[in-house]
Formats: sequence, C-alpha cells, structure tokens
Amino acid sequence: MLTISLPDGSQRRFEKQVNVREVALDIGEGLAKAAIACEVDGVQRDLSHQLPADGEVQLRLYTKRDPEALSIMRHSAAHVMAQAVMRLFPDVQLAFGPVTDTGFYYDMQLPRALSEDDFAAIEAEMKKIIKEDLPFERFEQLKADSIQLCEEMGQGFKVEHLQTGLGDEESVSFYRQGEFVDLCRGVHVPSTAHLGKAFKLLSVAGAYWKGDASRQQLQRLYATAFFDKKELKEHLHRLEEAKKRDHRVLGKQLDLFTIDNKVGSGLILWMPKGATLRQCLEEYIRDELRRRGYQAVYTPHIGRVELYETSGHFPYYRESQFPPLCEHEAGQLVDVFVERLKKGGLDSADEQKLLQAARVLGYEGDYPADGTNEEKAAALDAWAHEHERYLLKPMNCPHHIMIYKSKPRSYRDLPIRLAEFGSVYRYEQSGELSGMTRVRGFTQDDAHLFCTEDQVAEEVRGCLEMTQGVLQSLGMDNYRVRLGFRDPDSTKYVGDSEVWDRAEAAIERVAKEMNLPGCEPEPGEAAFYGPKIDFVVTDCIGREWQLGTVQLDYNLPSEGRFALEYIGPDNKPHRPVMIHRAPLGSMERFIGVLIEHFSGAFPLWLAPEQCRVLTVSEKSEEYGREVQQKLLAAGLRAEGDYRGAKLGAKIREAQLELIPYMLVVGEKDRDNGTVTVRDRQDGDIGAMPLDEAIAKLQDEIARKVVRQRPADDEAV
Amino acid sequence: MLTISLPDGSQRRFEKQVNVREVALDIGEGLAKAAIACEVDGVQRDLSHQLPADGEVQLRLYTKRDPEALSIMRHSAAHVMAQAVMRLFPDVQLAFGPVTDTGFYYDMQLPRALSEDDFAAIEAEMKKIIKEDLPFERFEQLKADSIQLCEEMGQGFKVEHLQTGLGDEESVSFYRQGEFVDLCRGVHVPSTAHLGKAFKLLSVAGAYWKGDASRQQLQRLYATAFFDKKELKEHLHRLEEAKKRDHRVLGKQLDLFTIDNKVGSGLILWMPKGATLRQCLEEYIRDELRRRGYQAVYTPHIGRVELYETSGHFPYYRESQFPPLCEHEAGQLVDVFVERLKKGGLDSADEQKLLQAARVLGYEGDYPADGTNEEKAAALDAWAHEHERYLLKPMNCPHHIMIYKSKPRSYRDLPIRLAEFGSVYRYEQSGELSGMTRVRGFTQDDAHLFCTEDQVAEEVRGCLEMTQGVLQSLGMDNYRVRLGFRDPDSTKYVGDSEVWDRAEAAIERVAKEMNLPGCEPEPGEAAFYGPKIDFVVTDCIGREWQLGTVQLDYNLPSEGRFALEYIGPDNKPHRPVMIHRAPLGSMERFIGVLIEHFSGAFPLWLAPEQCRVLTVSEKSEEYGREVQQKLLAAGLRAEGDYRGAKLGAKIREAQLELIPYMLVVGEKDRDNGTVTVRDRQDGDIGAMPLDEAIAKLQDEIARKVVRQRPADDEAV
Repeated sequence: MLTISLPDGSQRRFEKQVNVREVALDIGEGLAKAAIACEVDGVQRDLSHQLPADGEVQLRLYTKRDPEALSIMRHSAAHVMAQAVMRLFPDVQLAFGPVTDTGFYYDMQLPRALSEDDFAAIEAEMKKIIKEDLPFERFEQLKADSIQLCEEMGQGFKVEHLQTGLGDEESVSFYRQGEFVDLCRGVHVPSTAHLGKAFKLLSVAGAYWKGDASRQQLQRLYATAFFDKKELKEHLHRLEEAKKRDHRVLGKQLDLFTIDNKVGSGLILWMPKGATLRQCLEEYIRDELRRRGYQAVYTPHIGRVELYETSGHFPYYRESQFPPLCEHEAGQLVDVFVERLKKGGLDSADEQKLLQAARVLGYEGDYPADGTNEEKAAALDAWAHEHERYLLKPMNCPHHIMIYKSKPRSYRDLPIRLAEFGSVYRYEQSGELSGMTRVRGFTQDDAHLFCTEDQVAEEVRGCLEMTQGVLQSLGMDNYRVRLGFRDPDSTKYVGDSEVWDRAEAAIERVAKEMNLPGCEPEPGEAAFYGPKIDFVVTDCIGREWQLGTVQLDYNLPSEGRFALEYIGPDNKPHRPVMIHRAPLGSMERFIGVLIEHFSGAFPLWLAPEQCRVLTVSEKSEEYGREVQQKLLAAGLRAEGDYRGAKLGAKIREAQLELIPYMLVVGEKDRDNGTVTVRDRQDGDIGAMPLDEAIAKLQDEIARKVVRQRPADDEAV
Repeated sequence: MLTISLPDGSQRRFEKQVNVREVALDIGEGLAKAAIACEVDGVQRDLSHQLPADGEVQLRLYTKRDPEALSIMRHSAAHVMAQAVMRLFPDVQLAFGPVTDTGFYYDMQLPRALSEDDFAAIEAEMKKIIKEDLPFERFEQLKADSIQLCEEMGQGFKVEHLQTGLGDEESVSFYRQGEFVDLCRGVHVPSTAHLGKAFKLLSVAGAYWKGDASRQQLQRLYATAFFDKKELKEHLHRLEEAKKRDHRVLGKQLDLFTIDNKVGSGLILWMPKGATLRQCLEEYIRDELRRRGYQAVYTPHIGRVELYETSGHFPYYRESQFPPLCEHEAGQLVDVFVERLKKGGLDSADEQKLLQAARVLGYEGDYPADGTNEEKAAALDAWAHEHERYLLKPMNCPHHIMIYKSKPRSYRDLPIRLAEFGSVYRYEQSGELSGMTRVRGFTQDDAHLFCTEDQVAEEVRGCLEMTQGVLQSLGMDNYRVRLGFRDPDSTKYVGDSEVWDRAEAAIERVAKEMNLPGCEPEPGEAAFYGPKIDFVVTDCIGREWQLGTVQLDYNLPSEGRFALEYIGPDNKPHRPVMIHRAPLGSMERFIGVLIEHFSGAFPLWLAPEQCRVLTVSEKSEEYGREVQQKLLAAGLRAEGDYRGAKLGAKIREAQLELIPYMLVVGEKDRDNGTVTVRDRQDGDIGAMPLDEAIAKLQDEIARKVVRQRPADDEAV
C-alpha cells in the first residue's frame, strides 16, 4: 500500500499502483485538469509519473499559480517551437532549448537564416500544435539505443551530445509530442494544450554549438510564454520600456558616459554630464557620511600581493581579478608557471622548457625536480616573493584594515567607520560586460565599520537607515530586504556559532523594528564569513536590482587573517567585528539603474543641466545672458540657447535632452524682469519674476524632490 | 700677445704668458685677494691656470659673491675634510667626495665606524688645516703614472676607478694641499685659508662603493660650508626647522597619513584627518573649477597598452612605469623577452630557451630566427598584441583625450576644459621615495584644455590666475614663475616654429601683464612638445618647491598621435591646442609641502579638527556636549574632551595636536551660555556667547584666513 502526504497535511492511501494524474483525479477533477506537473519527494515529475506501489511519498501538485509551473510550461513551449520550426523547415538540426529567467530559446541549424518575417508563420504553426492537444510522452532508452534513435532522426548534435557530452548514465530520457521527439530530462506539461495562447517569438541571434566559437554557428530563436495574455502583454510592454530606457542608449544620447575600446572594455569614461550627476550623488552621500559619524579615508588602487594573500583574495579569486603587476620579470613567468603546475596541466618536457626560461630570467633556487607539483609551485612562489608584486585592488577592505591596524585601538575609539569612494577592478569575462551595470572597473560608495560585538545591532541599524534614506530620497521606494543567514546544518562558516546566533537575532530584530519590507531570514544565503542584508530594488518597469548591501565579517579580523584587535575595558585585547556596507553598491551600476529608472529624466537636484534659457528672438539675447548669469550665480547649472532658431525647435531640443526647466525670455520678459517657465513634465507654467523662478528651483533642489512618475512611460 | 676680455666689456693685453692670478693682480690687489676661481672662455679654471701666450680669451673672475663660488669652495672643503680625517685615521681609503645642493660629503672606508662624537675632533683638525693656509696645487699625470701614484698612496678605490671607471683620457689631474693628494678634476680655491670658519659636519651615513649594494660598504660624512657664519647659522636653523617640520614625522604625529609596506612603498594611506584636509582642498578646487567653466570627468585607473603606444608613453617610459598587466600569459613572457632582445642582452642559447617557453605558452607565430633583433621583437610584440594588456595609468591625458574624441567637436564647443582629480602611478626607485613628496601613486588636480590657437593666451591666463589664486589663498605667496621656452637652435621640438613663437610671445605677455614674479623666459627649458610655465614656491624656511604647472602640448593632438580635430567656422577640420595644468601638482606632494610650510598648524578652514570643547570639570560635561552638538550642527569639525583630567593637561594636549580653537566650558559658562575661547596661537581670548564664537569661527573659515605666521618657529 502507498501512502501519499499532501502539502495541506492530509494523506491518501492507494492499494494499487497509480500515477500522479490518477492521484489528482482522486482528489478532484478540477485539480486534475489544472495540474501541470508535480513534485514527488522534492523531485519534479510529470503528471504521468508512476508512483511506487508501496511506502510513503510526499506529493505536491503544481498548477499555474505555483511559481515552478511557469518554467515547466516554457520548457514545453520550447519543444513546441522546435516542432513548429521543423514542420516548416524539414532540415532543421536541433541543439539545445532551455528556459531563461524571462522566457526560453532554442538553438538550431537551419538551411537559411531566419528573420523576424518568419515569426508569424512559426507562431501560427505553434498555435496549430497547441490546438492539436498532443500529449507530452516520456520514454527512457539505453544510451546505445538513444544514439541510434537520434541517428535515425538525423539529429547530429544530439548524437554527439549522447556520445561525448553526458556522464555515465546507462539510459537517457526522451519526450515525444506528436511526430516530434526530443532528447530531454523533462519535466513537461501534460499536453500541448496546456501552453495556452500567451506566447511570442522575440528575436533571433547567432550562437555557437556548445558556446564554442570554433564550432558550428547556430541560430538562437528567443521567445517567451505566460499563462495568461495580460501577463504577456505586461512583459512585452516592459521589454519595450526597457529598450527605450536602456542606459547604454540613453547614456550616449544624453552624453553621460562612453566606453572606448582603446581604453578597455568595461571601463567607463564619465562624460562631463555623467560626472556632474555622479558628483551630486557623491556629495549627497558625503554629507550623509559626515552626519552619521563616518570618517573619510583615501587609499591607493593597488596593493602588494602579500596583502591579498593575507586577506585570502589571492590566489583564490584570480579568475575574476586582473593579473598581478610584477616589479621584476621573475614574477611574470613564475606566475604562469605556478598556475600551470597547480592545475596539473604541464607535461615534463614543457616543465623543463619553462624552468630553463626561468633560469634565463635569473631563477637560482633549488628546483625540486622530483617533488610534487605543490613543492615545485612553492619553490617558484618563493622566487616570485623575492620581488614586489601588486594587484589592482579588487576590493577596498584590506586597505581600510591597514588603516585600522596602523595604530593601537581602544574600545573607547569604537565604532570606527572608515568611508571611501573606492575604485576597484575585477576581470569580468568580456561576454558578461554591459554598459555601466556590468563593468571591469567601478567605484564603490564603500565603508568598513569596526565595532565591538555589543555594537553590532546599532551599527547595522545605522547602515540600514542610511541605505533606506538614500533609496527613498531617490524615489526608489519599491524595494525588499533579504536577510542572508547561515545554513544551520553546514559547518562551512567562520566564527563562533553563538556569535552568529546573536548577530542574526540582532539583525532580524533591527530589520523588523524598522518595518523593512521583505526581511524573512533566508537560511543558507549568508557568506561563509558572516550574515548579510541586501536591498533588492524594483525599478519602475518591474525589474529587480540588488543594490545596497550590509555584510558582517568574522573572517578578515580573525587570527589567521589580519588579527585585528582593540583593547577592552579589561585592558586585554579583543577582536572587533567588521561590517562592509555600500548603500548604492557602485556608482557605475547605481547610476546605470538610475538612468533606466528615470528614463534619463533625472530629478532636478541630479540633472546635469538643470535649466536652459531660451530666447524668443535675438532681441532678448542680452537679457537672456543676464538671466543665465544670475542662474549660475545662484548655484544653478544653467545653459543658454541664443541661436536664431525658432522657439519651438529650441523647446523640442531641450525637451529631448530632458532638461527639467526651460526659461523662455522674450521682449516682454525683458521689460518686466520675468521669465516664462516651462516644465519638462507639465509644460508651460507661466511667467514669473526671475527671483521667484530661482527660488522655486532652489527649493526643489534643496528638498531633493522626485517629481517624475517613472512608471509612467508617457513622461518620457 | 694675449687679449683678455672682461665681463664689464674692458680688455687687457699681456705681452708675456700669464696665469689668471697675475691677471687679477694686474686688475687690482683687492680683486686678486678676493678671487676664488674663474671662468676662461666659459670653462671653470683655478686661479693658477696658465693662459695662452697669444690670442683672445674671455675671463670672468669668481669672488664669493658669485653664485658659482660656493660650490667650488665646498668642493675644496671636502678635500680638507678628507685630509683632516686622514690625519686622525691613517688607514682611510677614500672613495668620492662631491658637493650637493646644500653642502658636500666624502665617502670613505675607515678602520672603525665614525659617530657624531668624532665630529669635534675632525672639525678642529680642519680648522688647523685652514690656518695652515695650504695652497691647492693642480698637476696632471699620464694614466699609468696616476695608477702608480695611487697605489703608492695605498688608495685602492682610486686605483680601481683609474683602471675601470674612466674614459679614454690619456692623462688625469690631481690636487695637492700639503701632504694630501687627491685624484680630482677640480676646480679649487687658491688655498685652504679661503675656506673660512663657516663649516660644519652634519651627519654620517652608510653608502656603497659606486652605489652598488654588492660592493664595499663605506661611511659617508656629510658636511656643509658657507662663506660667512651668518649664512651657516641660517642654514643650520633651516635644517633644524625642516627636521621639526618634517611632514613624515608630523604626518604620523598628527595622524594624517601612513605608509604600510604590506600595501606598498610610496603608496599613501590617508588617515581620516589627512583625508579631511584633502577633502577641504578638493572641495575648494572643485568650486574654483566650477566658477571657471571647467567640466568634471572621471576616468579609470588603467588603460590598454595601445592607448599609451599612441600617446608615446609606452614603451619609451617603461622604466618609470609599473609593468603592464597582461590578460593572457602570452604578454607576460613576451614582455621580458622583447625587452631583452631590444637591449641586445640575450645570447642565442638563452633566446632559444625563452622561445621554447613562449611555444609552451602558446606562441604559434613564425619566429624570424635569422632576423634582426628588431624583427624578432616585432614578431613577439604581434603575439602580445593579440591579447589585452593594460597599464596602470601614469598620467590622465590619454583618457581625457578619448573623452574629447568621443564625439565630433565644433569651434563653438571650444575651449573644452576637462578636469579630474586623477590618480596616477609611476614607479619611482625605492631609494627616491620620501613620505608624501616622492611617491609611487598620487592624485593630480589635473585638467586638460582643448582650444583654438587664438584662445591660447586667454586660457593660459585663466590657468595662471587660478594657480595664483590658489597659492595665495593658502598663504604661499612667496613664489616665482619660470617660463620654459624653446631653445631656438634646436630642432627637437614638435610643431610649427611660428606657432611656438606666437605661443611664447602670448605666454610672456600674459605673465607680464599679470605681474607674476620671475617670468624671465628660460630658453631650452620647454618640453619637446610645448612651452611651459612652472610655479616655484619658497616655503617659510626658504626651500623651493615646484608646485603648479601649465604646459602647452602640440604633440598629443598631432596627426601621428591622437589626431585631434574640431570643425572650424570654415566647416573644415582644424587641430586644437592642448594645455595640461595642475595648480597644486599632486594632492600628496602639495599636502606634504603644506604640512611642512605650516608645521602642521593648518589654517582653520583646512584643520582636520577645527575646535575642541574642554570641560573644566565633570560638572560641565552636559553643557560641553550641548556646545559640541551646536558646533557640529553649525558645520564645524568639533571634538570634545570630557575626561576627568586637569584642564591644564587637556589644553596642553590640544595645543600639541595643533587644534586651532579650544572652547573651555566651566560652570559659569554653563550658567551664562558662554564659552571661553582659547586660540592655538594667541592663547586665552576670553569668554563670549557661544553664538558669537561660532560666528567668529565661521567667518574665519569663509574667508580662508591664514593667521599663522609660518616663518616664525615660535608658533609651533
């Protein structure tokens, strides 16, 4: 007899062997119809999955309301899309067709290049297949039989994958719907009818078989699907919005930043307008830091490799760092040599050649020719350590720690809060780079706090308040807070277990007292060195961005690392707790998000050009320049457009450049000492004395007003 | 017959052959007595120098009033010091004994280590020698005879130098005074009596023979000498002052900065107080920049090697740069390989070994084994260029140029003034490093101006005015301006000769119109790429520092470099002129100088801690904290000393920390709402209402008052 436990705590017993669909039917016909797939003892399964005859299982049925259901349906949609393409292009060679965060794609080789013109036909064919209501049938086969099957189907990529791309499974699974069969782990919806009509092909792009640029070039067909049309419509709208708001496009259009391959990929050159925006933000943060008792520091952009060996960042994170700078040629070869040895990828002939080269470059050490790779690497490392090697700093903490350590500290000095707009460099893969949001060099609004364990709660509160305040003043009030806590069953964490318990309890208490949204502890989400708190901001088109972060650290202060100390009231040395935090994260990424959030229409206090004087005709140029001088003297970032062009054209141009205020001046204004104010958002708001206009703008700046309705695309 | 022309234009004729002393005697006995050495046809000579029997010579006699005389006398003093040491320590081995900017030294090997305790005896012996009035006699010998002479004198270092350290001279010169003979080019004063009594031994330090750490260790005896005692006294006073003001000592004492070997030599970690000072300066500069129409930019701290190949900074300045970071191991080995090839320091066996290593690392190119070194280097360079290589930026100009180039520019956009506090890195030799004034990483208050040739004069004027204003507002009003112009006879300069003429004329005109001190054109002092203007500041103890600089550049905008353009009113492309300028130079160096200039007693607006509340007793602690809060709220950097210690002790401590204002609060103050103000410089200035004290300080800050009399060492 089989006992099935359901999520509501109820149980059902079956004497004969059943599949999941039969269980669903037993619960109710409505559920059986709505069910899409399921989870048996925590493993996703098809509804056709046969349950064991005896024993006990936990069963959870997915309907479209379950978050897992969407991915499963999209995976099935990928099969249907491939089927549709095959009906239209019989010679299609299929590669892989996975789901993504927002849809799915399928890579395939086709006799000709697809274009958006083909999408309607493919979509129509997909609709047909959905209407045919073809069941998804799973079957398993021995590998050898599977290879034969794929050969019979003429699917060479699948054959290769079966031959070389898999582990030592004996058998593999396929899914069939109608005439279409695909090698696939599953799981899938019961039939093509479950896909509904809310799908859309989005684009086609190039891709390589197995992502390898030396292999066959494929066409990647991107699409998405939802359970209902409203969701699809919203998603498509968001995509449209995102395209319009793309900070890479707006960044160029509004002259905010540029990237030049001659300087390097992923390295931002801030144009004057972007730099002005950044300065405004930095000045704002600097004021906040002063108000909150932080101390500014400046540190260099490089540090000796030894510093990062102590911190543990070298050589363990080498992949994501720029390579070291070596004062002496010794370090340059040895670095390669050691890496190869450590990875074991060096045969003895090549080893000899590299060793000889090292000798040419002056290596005089005893090379342990019969030693292990570790011994050899150690011998060469010792040679490299005779010389200075520097790393472009991948983070600021070791430098701030050296400032903490530069003199004895007493409990009376704590908390110490060291802040710096610290530029750091990380070697992201070039394929990962994107505008300002994925870069190789960025400036963190960084700070490191050193405090006693008793001070942790108050310091965390201070950090959270600052982040909250900063986000709110930027109109980014739609965020949730994630509490990354330790997995209680794991032993990977550094530091005393009771200390963790107290810290996590304090963090949770503070976050709840502050009524921060979200705030459910997420066990297992902590770093190995301490619990963390992330601010995840939802922008005006619904995308989530992880921005501010607060992170406790029991590792870097520890004995094996920097062995930080302060003298307690008992006159004995104690270990401080360290907190890393950055309310914005990085200036690059944050401003990238800000550009998209505001579609480039920044609040007045951030706008690079806050107002522009527009003359009606040349007759008012003199007065216009006078107005501009007064605006500048009042501390406003003002430009003037004194060309002979028509006023309408000047307004359109200023509007396109998203200038918050246009001050139109004509002869009447000159005679009356007024300006006619035009608001980027509300249009003409009438004539007023210049002083009044200046006061209005100054007030809006001082209050950091966010007047834009960023969710409203009409505002753009 | 010999005709001698004298500087005053007069001429003298001699029928018989004469030496210079005889000429001097002929002019007058007073002059002959005062004469120390001379210049014959532009070459320095002893007074005993025999003039030719016939022809014409230009003769200039040096007396102690001539600037050249001091070095000559010091050189003679070095011989006398060596003679004195030899009289006291017969086994002395002499190395070299040159003059320095401020004195002289002699390196020697002695049977025992000297200490300051020996100085009195050596000085006494020197006095004796001076009294003996021994003439300095020059004689020349063939090299072989010279070696024999030095061997006979037992001077091994001199023997070695004669054997290996000289060119292919046939004969060399010696100087003898009394029993002392030294290999020496000269020139010298006529006799030891000309040294006078104004000399002093200063210190003894270690040194190596020929500066090579693998050779013999020597003792370097430092001393100085002047023509009169008053000058010596002033110099010694300056040395004392410099020691007290040493920014390395004050920097540590006042907690301004630290250097940690784990981060790297020459890399400054700015402690909170130093960072506060720097922020004040940066904010001040930033305001000036805004006022003067500069635009801020931010650029990364690295750039691709290709960028610096275009600018010409790579590989030509490799010696003074940190080595490149190479994305791929290829670049790492090849860099060494190419360097060795280029220097020709690679035999063919070693070349083979390095080539094999390159093959191991993936070099698949055709190596031109029979080619020239240049061809081989080119082949390997091509391999390196397949990969990304970056340089830690040694200057900001190429980055700013890429911003200029990022879009088309019109004459209407010019001048464009791009400003950045740009951190740059240069690899100074470790022996050259010193505190903040000689570092490996520094932040320039940099800007690059792009303008038309017509705009050069006005832009230079703007740069000079800004530098002048900044220096004056810091109380550094003792400076001179150097105009570095082209050597009209040289062809090494880039750019059109007429353009240079116009630019130099414009610079000179502007500098003179501004009444800048100094300002005499110095031909030959221009860089090859353009004329320059340097501000040389004399600090309060008389030392000169080159700080602000303005530099025209015809090279980087040129066709072979970045080929910069703007579209002129004629709709055709034109080449802009580029100006580099930095009023402070670098934050590190400038603040290092500032620390010494003010002896750490900064003007109120720059002081990291502007005021400190001191409580008379615990009874006024509450009021004291209230006062501190009000000071903070008023934007003042205020701390409080609320300990139970005695007021006198608290005042002494604040005085030592050079806090500009101490606000003492007792019970009476609490009752009256007053504070008793104590000025770091003038002491107690009486009780006043708190608001009045705040207003007083705010006013002093707003006006950037420099109240310190930095030349007065009593102020410290």
